[in-house]
Amino acid sequence: MARIAVDAMGGDLAPQETVLGAIDAVEAGCEVVLVGDSTVVGGLLDGQGVDLPVVHAAEVIDMAEDPAAAIRAKKSASITVAARLVATGEAAGLVSAGSTGATLAAAATVIGRVAGVSRPALAVMAPLSERTIVLDAGANIEVRPEHLVEFAVMGSVLARVYLGKEDPSVGLLNIGEEENKGRELERQAYALLAAAPVRFVGNVEGRDLGTPRADVFVTDGFTGNVLLKTFEGTARAVGRLVGERLVPGEGVAAGGAPPSPIAGLWAGLDAEDHGGAHLLGTRGTVVIAHGSSTRRGVSNAVRLAAEGSERDLVGRIGAVLSGA
Amino acid sequence: MARIAVDAMGGDLAPQETVLGAIDAVEAGCEVVLVGDSTVVGGLLDGQGVDLPVVHAAEVIDMAEDPAAAIRAKKSASITVAARLVATGEAAGLVSAGSTGATLAAAATVIGRVAGVSRPALAVMAPLSERTIVLDAGANIEVRPEHLVEFAVMGSVLARVYLGKEDPSVGLLNIGEEENKGRELERQAYALLAAAPVRFVGNVEGRDLGTPRADVFVTDGFTGNVLLKTFEGTARAVGRLVGERLVPGEGVAAGGAPPSPIAGLWAGLDAEDHGGAHLLGTRGTVVIAHGSSTRRGVSNAVRLAAEGSERDLVGRIGAVLSGA
Repeated sequence: MARIAVDAMGGDLAPQETVLGAIDAVEAGCEVVLVGDSTVVGGLLDGQGVDLPVVHAAEVIDMAEDPAAAIRAKKSASITVAARLVATGEAAGLVSAGSTGATLAAAATVIGRVAGVSRPALAVMAPLSERTIVLDAGANIEVRPEHLVEFAVMGSVLARVYLGKEDPSVGLLNIGEEENKGRELERQAYALLAAAPVRFVGNVEGRDLGTPRADVFVTDGFTGNVLLKTFEGTARAVGRLVGERLVPGEGVAAGGAPPSPIAGLWAGLDAEDHGGAHLLGTRGTVVIAHGSSTRRGVSNAVRLAAEGSERDLVGRIGAVLSGA
Repeated sequence: MARIAVDAMGGDLAPQETVLGAIDAVEAGCEVVLVGDSTVVGGLLDGQGVDLPVVHAAEVIDMAEDPAAAIRAKKSASITVAARLVATGEAAGLVSAGSTGATLAAAATVIGRVAGVSRPALAVMAPLSERTIVLDAGANIEVRPEHLVEFAVMGSVLARVYLGKEDPSVGLLNIGEEENKGRELERQAYALLAAAPVRFVGNVEGRDLGTPRADVFVTDGFTGNVLLKTFEGTARAVGRLVGERLVPGEGVAAGGAPPSPIAGLWAGLDAEDHGGAHLLGTRGTVVIAHGSSTRRGVSNAVRLAAEGSERDLVGRIGAVLSGA
């Protein structure tokens, strides 16, 4: 069983919810080591009836701090200590709901990259009936065409490991289907992707999200971040519109469907169900959970990381990229 | 009443639906001139009981043609002739459901820009309960920071004219709220926008679409296009998810709400209801309707253009930008 280091101090609801989420993950069969202030974490574990290993970390990196500077200054920050456990092999991966920037910086400076990867990327599996992997979701706001090829390879491995796709398809996020569309970045990447060891299906658009058009969307981290936040915002806004029409006492409620179809919809779109985003290309399975994760979100993130480690996500990425 | 030139030959369902849409707009009180093959258009008008002026245009630009080359080669294309009517003042604005690229090229070469505008931009009013104006939606895939300031000014005028906002707020589309977020483009634009004659409220994200956070979102045309297509695709995907849960015979249907709340939802999100996107910064009100527009979409696009012309959208943009 792959052991996952959980940054107990990272996240809006940490350490309470991160510790409880870690306990839930252990009860679901995962192996976990908690990283954080041992007094605080020990206090939260008391009386929970489980005995989890705790590695002490004296400092915490705040959401408001400059990530790179904080990683340099705080050598015993919980995220840094967790990353060190991965670097030394004491843990197979890590989960943090803390500052994304700090996790990216800790992964880059402490864990390091898989051979053949020049830019680790954040990959999100958008929770739609046809799940679409989008990367980069924000780790690299400006990229070169060859980075998009690395993203395509890494995203394809993620689709094989998590979506059970034998031969996943990759689309280049663009503003039209034709080969000559887009910026210089997209035009150059199109040619490189056509020659890359992936099943490239051409350009895709935001409206293809959640359709069978492509399993993996590649783009720069700025555009990917905008796409994912627009997806999230629109899903909520449309949910509100539907909700306004499903007024209690009329329609659904009068029909007796308890409590409303919206509840089911949110279960399908809730970020907590999906655990978090993968940072692909680092030498360890790194899962970044939503900052507002509750125990359920943290528990799912740990399971996601454990699953990736067991299925050798990192090794498989290395096998494709170092051989390429 | 402002006279609007309608490109009768542009659009997937042209000329049938464009001509019928123009007739509907006239019956709703608009003044229209149809531009296209006079025999074909005349035949469609026959027996409709209305007598609309038709200006003959011998050629049509196809969706598959290179827009700039087609505009240069086909001097009597319907979109070019329509643009010429605007340039000479015979029409106050134009509507086309044909190739967006060709309309942009015709506007640039035949109509020309408002003084003070260096880059006309496509503005879309996203159909949410809080309507959000997004520009550029795809006319300029790469821009400089100062162009975003022009977009902010033009979008604010659009919000005053159409959304009835006295003092519209402008947000810079970015990947985080903090001032230093984003690419070099966003960091430089942030400072320029803070000093511009608009009510700048800082960075906004895709998830703020349809919320009171900002009335106008400014971004480059690549990102804006991705945002709008993601919005469209997600609204449809979420609609499908809701639909799967509202199975006939259960829930809503059993409760007797006819036919289902989804129908009402689509009426709110349907592009046809909103007519089209404005090309702002050209010397005439230019509205680009969806390529698949039916008569209803065309009719609404004509009304949108007529409304803009009557309220002097072009003059008000010029007044702010030439004075700045």
